[in-house]
Amino acid sequence: MSLKGKHMLCTQDWSIDELIQVLELAQDMKKERWTEKYARILDRRTFFMFFYNPSVRTRQSFEAAATELGGHAQFLEPKSMRLKTAKTAGETVEDAANVMSRYACGIGIRILEDKIPAYGEGQKLCEEYAKYSKVPIVSMAHDKFHPCQGLADMQGLWQHMGRENVKGKKLLQVWGHGALARSWCSVQESILISSRFGMDVTLAYPEGYDLDPEVIEMTKKNCRDNGANFEISHDPVECYDGAHVVYSRNWMHPDAYHDGELHKAEEIERAMKYTDWICDEEKMKRTENALFTHPMPIDRGHEVTDAVASGPRSIIYDVAENRLHVQKALMALTMGNM
Amino acid sequence: MSLKGKHMLCTQDWSIDELIQVLELAQDMKKERWTEKYARILDRRTFFMFFYNPSVRTRQSFEAAATELGGHAQFLEPKSMRLKTAKTAGETVEDAANVMSRYACGIGIRILEDKIPAYGEGQKLCEEYAKYSKVPIVSMAHDKFHPCQGLADMQGLWQHMGRENVKGKKLLQVWGHGALARSWCSVQESILISSRFGMDVTLAYPEGYDLDPEVIEMTKKNCRDNGANFEISHDPVECYDGAHVVYSRNWMHPDAYHDGELHKAEEIERAMKYTDWICDEEKMKRTENALFTHPMPIDRGHEVTDAVASGPRSIIYDVAENRLHVQKALMALTMGNM
Amino acid sequence: MSLKGKHMLCTQDWSIDELIQVLELAQDMKKERWTEKYARILDRRTFFMFFYNPSVRTRQSFEAAATELGGHAQFLEPKSMRLKTAKTAGETVEDAANVMSRYACGIGIRILEDKIPAYGEGQKLCEEYAKYSKVPIVSMAHDKFHPCQGLADMQGLWQHMGRENVKGKKLLQVWGHGALARSWCSVQESILISSRFGMDVTLAYPEGYDLDPEVIEMTKKNCRDNGANFEISHDPVECYDGAHVVYSRNWMHPDAYHDGELHKAEEIERAMKYTDWICDEEKMKRTENALFTHPMPIDRGHEVTDAVASGPRSIIYDVAENRLHVQKALMALTMGNM
Repeated sequence: MSLKGKHMLCTQDWSIDELIQVLELAQDMKKERWTEKYARILDRRTFFMFFYNPSVRTRQSFEAAATELGGHAQFLEPKSMRLKTAKTAGETVEDAANVMSRYACGIGIRILEDKIPAYGEGQKLCEEYAKYSKVPIVSMAHDKFHPCQGLADMQGLWQHMGRENVKGKKLLQVWGHGALARSWCSVQESILISSRFGMDVTLAYPEGYDLDPEVIEMTKKNCRDNGANFEISHDPVECYDGAHVVYSRNWMHPDAYHDGELHKAEEIERAMKYTDWICDEEKMKRTENALFTHPMPIDRGHEVTDAVASGPRSIIYDVAENRLHVQKALMALTMGNM
Repeated sequence: MSLKGKHMLCTQDWSIDELIQVLELAQDMKKERWTEKYARILDRRTFFMFFYNPSVRTRQSFEAAATELGGHAQFLEPKSMRLKTAKTAGETVEDAANVMSRYACGIGIRILEDKIPAYGEGQKLCEEYAKYSKVPIVSMAHDKFHPCQGLADMQGLWQHMGRENVKGKKLLQVWGHGALARSWCSVQESILISSRFGMDVTLAYPEGYDLDPEVIEMTKKNCRDNGANFEISHDPVECYDGAHVVYSRNWMHPDAYHDGELHKAEEIERAMKYTDWICDEEKMKRTENALFTHPMPIDRGHEVTDAVASGPRSIIYDVAENRLHVQKALMALTMGNM
Repeated sequence: MSLKGKHMLCTQDWSIDELIQVLELAQDMKKERWTEKYARILDRRTFFMFFYNPSVRTRQSFEAAATELGGHAQFLEPKSMRLKTAKTAGETVEDAANVMSRYACGIGIRILEDKIPAYGEGQKLCEEYAKYSKVPIVSMAHDKFHPCQGLADMQGLWQHMGRENVKGKKLLQVWGHGALARSWCSVQESILISSRFGMDVTLAYPEGYDLDPEVIEMTKKNCRDNGANFEISHDPVECYDGAHVVYSRNWMHPDAYHDGELHKAEEIERAMKYTDWICDEEKMKRTENALFTHPMPIDRGHEVTDAVASGPRSIIYDVAENRLHVQKALMALTMGNM
């Protein structure tokens, strides 16, 4: 099954078999990291990383991924790129994507809430690039989805629960208070991919912190298709009951956006009041000895206590490492000489 | 004929045979892009790219060029470099160039109008680097010239007209209105290199938008030396008559510079009034089924209509791709282990 | 003697035999720069360069070092990294260092006076990274020390005096006036490493420009341990008597720091008054035909005259080149597949 040339904006766009192919390759790439097996998959190829939003982790892992496959990733910040907008002269996405397709084997894009006038605009830009690009577009996190994080999460569960034990287990996707006003992308990707793999999903958050209704509907359908359960809870304690995986993370309120921009200070002020919403050892006792995961960076003391984040069931560093492996696998399958 | 160690600030500084050597190698490099033939020409060598002015295209193509030859290009922004100036303490170009020659196989410099106090200062800085550097200096576009663009243009003509058919054909180098207040460098390089290769050159622009008189004199001499015709026109329509290649692009008025800086807003306001100066299908009908070219990014709707820019005779993406090939060829010949 | 995994924050932390191992390898790497001997020591490995402070030279030499060893160095500016501080939410150094250890073979850190609230804070941050990182931390210059510069200086002396002739020679470490308010790190590293190698050290500066008393005590002890002489002079002329190496460089006054920040303009105003403190040919005549060295960039006309800096006894370009060789040697020994 060739994945050559395929875009990756959300795991939901790919079949379950295609996702499994990525994860299996990621596992093998972890094992064969320093052998010659995959050393020339991107031999002398260039991957463009477009960071509309800065990022350390994502940049580090994508650039290292290209290097380990024998290629090179260019770190690009589009502030220096004169793209045409409704108001300003500049280059069209059609022209930019066509030219970049002549230079690179693939293009990554990162664009989050604070760089766009409304939720959904990042997704639209990614889709426009995908429309014109002759080489694969991969999301490095955009306002709506974060497919590489979702894949890294699932690889972490394969590693720590056993691949065959994921189905039927309960994922608690729980909101954490905190001072960072975070994107919906990691969380939305998480509930999509875990429901694809047959997990029961409990989404818990203070009233009002609803995610994108379209993504909720997709998750419900995934659950129905896989005989799994989907539930929403507004109880910061009882939601932990019976969980096998706890993923505690802040996300912003739908009202954080208004008048064409993100109101970050206002959003942080709102979130910091919900001090009950923290993952701690007391709550973790209600679970089935659950794994703790998080896409990092963690806001310790708000989203989760140190005791849990650094505890024996925390898999955060392994999941962070998996970003490298799944990205290498994705690049190899969609852009490489496999 | 060894070109090892040679600087490239303008194609005019090189003999026609040397330019042909670059273009022939660029053609072969296009063909052998992913074979091993040129895979180790810059093996583990470092190329420094100094971007006094930001750029996406130029950075992408130079960095990819180094990668494809087995080397690595460093993206450097001299804002973090403390160079000595008339007013401030700092390092001399002599010191900087001497040290960099110990680390790198070559140095690229990009410096345009808005980073210098007067036209010609970018050229002077490039020359000062060339004076002290022990490794080749290559212009990645400066206020006066843009040799890599000129070479890419000519490679495009070889590809689409046939190498043997370039001589005696008419290039229309025509001003386009638009909102970007563009440099003279690409346009000046274009008329120089096409007259070197024996093309008739018609330079068309609204009265007042004169280019550098010294460059015009050089172009006239090139035409005389090659039995070609040189003409200046101020008619935005008739200039198209009989053209084989149309290159429509905005450039700024000589008055854009005054009081030691570029007055961009003023310049754009002046240029936007000349709405007749756009390349469209109607005008293209007056030509000999001319190719359309442009160094990109294009300001569509001002410099040229979508119909022409995306039409069947447009070679803009191929010319953009050629930037990669000619830069690889230049680096290989002047800096590599050929 | 394996150095794999060892941090390098200051040469003083390493044994003399370990330092000699680095220098011997650096010498061999200079000789074998373009052979295959060391071409795959960092094969496809990633080195992270954290520049809290910008730098051209250090970045160029570290990035080229990684490239020449077959790896790749990522240029990272932590402004885009949300680290937890006393006042702001963000990631802990523990988390950052743990995750980065999964991606990279080593981490370089550069942090100077103007990015920290007090002298010593840069050292503390480096130590905190070293505490949590599973891969070597190497200082790329911090407020207190600059080990790679110290090693490059010593390699320069080996090259120009002969390795066996360094012991017992007199190093004059002399303050130069100038407009750059420079860090103590290079100077402190210099007197430490030269006293380790048995040189007599004369530290000369205008009254008040004392360096870190702890470093002075360490240097005195190094001298005692090696039968060498240590001396402080406040005479800008007589200090030159009998010197074999003159290292003239500006450094800032201890009072430059107050109220939690560096007062640069005030510091430069103070320094510029000491016009006697410049290294010139007249003073050099008092030496034993001394070598002139400097870590560059040089503030010519203030720290040293052109005649000396560009004179026959100046080894500044060789020392600058050595940065590359010692950094390659350090990376190979602590991070590589030796």
